[in-house]
Amino acid sequence: MSFRASVLTLYPEMFPGALGLSLAGRALENGIWSLETVQIRDFATDRHRSVDDTPAGGGAGMVMRADVLARAIDHASPAGDPRPRLLMSPRGHPLTQARVRELATGPGAVIVCGRFEGVDQRVIEARGLEEVSIGDYILSGGEPAALVLLDAVVRLLPGVMGNETSGEHESFEAALLDHPHYTRPQEWAGRSIPEVLTSGNHARIAQWRQAEAERLTAARRPDLLEGRDQALTK
Amino acid sequence: MSFRASVLTLYPEMFPGALGLSLAGRALENGIWSLETVQIRDFATDRHRSVDDTPAGGGAGMVMRADVLARAIDHASPAGDPRPRLLMSPRGHPLTQARVRELATGPGAVIVCGRFEGVDQRVIEARGLEEVSIGDYILSGGEPAALVLLDAVVRLLPGVMGNETSGEHESFEAALLDHPHYTRPQEWAGRSIPEVLTSGNHARIAQWRQAEAERLTAARRPDLLEGRDQALTK
Repeated sequence: MSFRASVLTLYPEMFPGALGLSLAGRALENGIWSLETVQIRDFATDRHRSVDDTPAGGGAGMVMRADVLARAIDHASPAGDPRPRLLMSPRGHPLTQARVRELATGPGAVIVCGRFEGVDQRVIEARGLEEVSIGDYILSGGEPAALVLLDAVVRLLPGVMGNETSGEHESFEAALLDHPHYTRPQEWAGRSIPEVLTSGNHARIAQWRQAEAERLTAARRPDLLEGRDQALTK
Repeated sequence: MSFRASVLTLYPEMFPGALGLSLAGRALENGIWSLETVQIRDFATDRHRSVDDTPAGGGAGMVMRADVLARAIDHASPAGDPRPRLLMSPRGHPLTQARVRELATGPGAVIVCGRFEGVDQRVIEARGLEEVSIGDYILSGGEPAALVLLDAVVRLLPGVMGNETSGEHESFEAALLDHPHYTRPQEWAGRSIPEVLTSGNHARIAQWRQAEAERLTAARRPDLLEGRDQALTK
């Protein structure tokens, strides 16, 4: 049973986009996952096919209507659909590799791409949308965020990565940033590969990599180390 | 002078992708920004056109070669190019709206999309690459991250958003998540718009929105409130 993604958007032509190439694209061709897009505007009922309206209480921007979006969701994900319903939104819970891994073991995802100032709160509540944020910055809409989420999930589906990468010694899997990497040529522009890496001493190499990963994490992301220390003491 | 983006990638066909449509696409057509892609593989010199090699010290995956990538960077961004050189990488500093805003006021960006297990550390140092992470999850490569970064930056370029959104009362601009939004219809599926928002009392509405934003931030992102409290006491 393959992973089924349904993306609700005002810009279906943004998909599959980058997901149609490389790892994710081959997996799509091979049926490891499927991607359906749903044009939210198709569920508008007035003659202008409007999907948004001015915010109650005033203010800038427009708000996506609850009634139109609910119809689109009910079409893509009828009662009984076991897939989680996500809303890409900067107000959401930050996406983590743990959540990505969870999604990758599930049946798929229904992904709503917000646009405008936001989405009517009532449809978020009535349809149990899980608000997910990919980071602390503002996008023009949820579409680039949906591409990122699906890319992260699809690479973990069985049969996608093969031996291209281990999927193990990577940033976040051990709550540490990844250590520096080097490859041939041995000498480049007056810079050598650190001697330890060409020593053949596997214990020293492992030790050096661990120390570098810890040093880098402490310098750039002390918040990850705090999280790890808390996890270890629980 | 328009914002110039150069993207170094093994998958130039992933661009402009979503950036060719909607806000960013119109701005691209209107010359508010420009997008050049550089195929890193064009700078390989062996007959297999190889861009990667096995990691020094052993381990899974492949590492992008310093010599090939440096030639691609020197082509796209010769000495004297004032644009920052970014490397999309989960080891990087987390992207923030403040950094996005900074980039949007600059001349452009040279964006290197990593693939494989990582990029040879020597080219990162020798070419002064700023490692940028869009979030704590692993992608198949830097391309979806580059799409996200450019989308966030382009919407802030002068003339892009117009009056579509204010760009002000949004998540992160005040270190608070955005309050809930509502729009017509007034009644939907047995749910009403909160009475305060239709009261016409602007002071009460502003107060309610501020309280909701604080409540939501405390529930979902206490880390943002800590950061704000620290900023206020400095």
